[in-house]
Amino acid sequence: MDKISDVSFKNITESIYIRPFRIQYTQDGKKKLWDCAVHHDSVAILVHNISRDVFVFVKQFRPAVYYNQAESLGAVESGRIDSEKAPGRLGVTYEMCAGIVDKDCSVEQIAKEEVLEECGYDVPLRHLEKITVCRSGVGTSGTLQTLFYAKVTDAMRVGEGGGNPTEGELIEVIEVPVSESLAFVMDETVETPVGLLFGITWYMACKQNQKGCKSGGCS
Amino acid sequence: MDKISDVSFKNITESIYIRPFRIQYTQDGKKKLWDCAVHHDSVAILVHNISRDVFVFVKQFRPAVYYNQAESLGAVESGRIDSEKAPGRLGVTYEMCAGIVDKDCSVEQIAKEEVLEECGYDVPLRHLEKITVCRSGVGTSGTLQTLFYAKVTDAMRVGEGGGNPTEGELIEVIEVPVSESLAFVMDETVETPVGLLFGITWYMACKQNQKGCKSGGCS
Repeated sequence: MDKISDVSFKNITESIYIRPFRIQYTQDGKKKLWDCAVHHDSVAILVHNISRDVFVFVKQFRPAVYYNQAESLGAVESGRIDSEKAPGRLGVTYEMCAGIVDKDCSVEQIAKEEVLEECGYDVPLRHLEKITVCRSGVGTSGTLQTLFYAKVTDAMRVGEGGGNPTEGELIEVIEVPVSESLAFVMDETVETPVGLLFGITWYMACKQNQKGCKSGGCS
Repeated sequence: MDKISDVSFKNITESIYIRPFRIQYTQDGKKKLWDCAVHHDSVAILVHNISRDVFVFVKQFRPAVYYNQAESLGAVESGRIDSEKAPGRLGVTYEMCAGIVDKDCSVEQIAKEEVLEECGYDVPLRHLEKITVCRSGVGTSGTLQTLFYAKVTDAMRVGEGGGNPTEGELIEVIEVPVSESLAFVMDETVETPVGLLFGITWYMACKQNQKGCKSGGCS
């Protein structure tokens, strides 16, 4: 997965993935403008295999993370990245299973399909628990992300997962024991989005420690 | 803050805030490309006023969140948003104090300055505790975000906060009792990014409940 080579980049003015638009508005009598980018709503799922008490994460190469790592190492110059100086593993992240809401069905159904596609588990809808919703990229996209907790068992594993190859996805399924998960995600050498950090600390505060949950008012 | 009117929007191909670029690379022998957008690294700070045991959040109008809310209400049509149908309060979020790393000084110093500018507290550097680092927008930006926990007291409050008006910032400082904070952020009607969700559950798992911290390996 992390054998990365021949890396180049260029500025573009058109992208089907990143479409900037400008909002103009009046706030408290003052005219303002703000540039945003169109995105899809999404789901993310904290997958907990209760047969072996492990969390199931997805590991993948993220070009944007790689670019930033390469830049901080001085490996970026004139449209190229030196992949000797910045090896591909620097762009590998650990994340919750996730996907975009691009079909006309419930977010629960989309979450169920992502768990199957990325992690190989056929999880019944009743094993999906909605944690809460939040906003992604409040600065530029502001889309809704619905967060789930999914209890799976070894018996539900019907495939390898790995993502949708026709979409270019190349995902490795990783298991981390629940007892080691907090130390794992807090380790600064492990590249994670804040969503995974939330998933684990939510579990610690609201699931594992039921007392904390009740006193804190977590539903 | 939430008196929003005269809202229009248009597609743009150039923005100084959102600059798309395309990375081309070879992964495991396969040629691929990915579109990213340039952003800055950032800091976010969970501000805890220990004089009154409250968390200090920032409340602001986020155009991107507002646009998404308006769209889901059917208030978007042909370049305009009907602000009667979609009132401005729908775009108001609650977040941790945060800022971009755009100066040549330590992330601790930038965090300290953001706490002063947005929340009005002059916090000594020794009261800033680094929680961890994570990646923002792994899909498109992949920048580094450094997360801090800051203990402040009423005696450190030297100003009103509110953000930098020359940058167009209009921020309201909000206090939420620590005992109510988990219920507050988990409430689906409260618009929050996942970063704030993490801040609160990290506190519950690693600070308030020191036992959970040790057993989980949180440093």
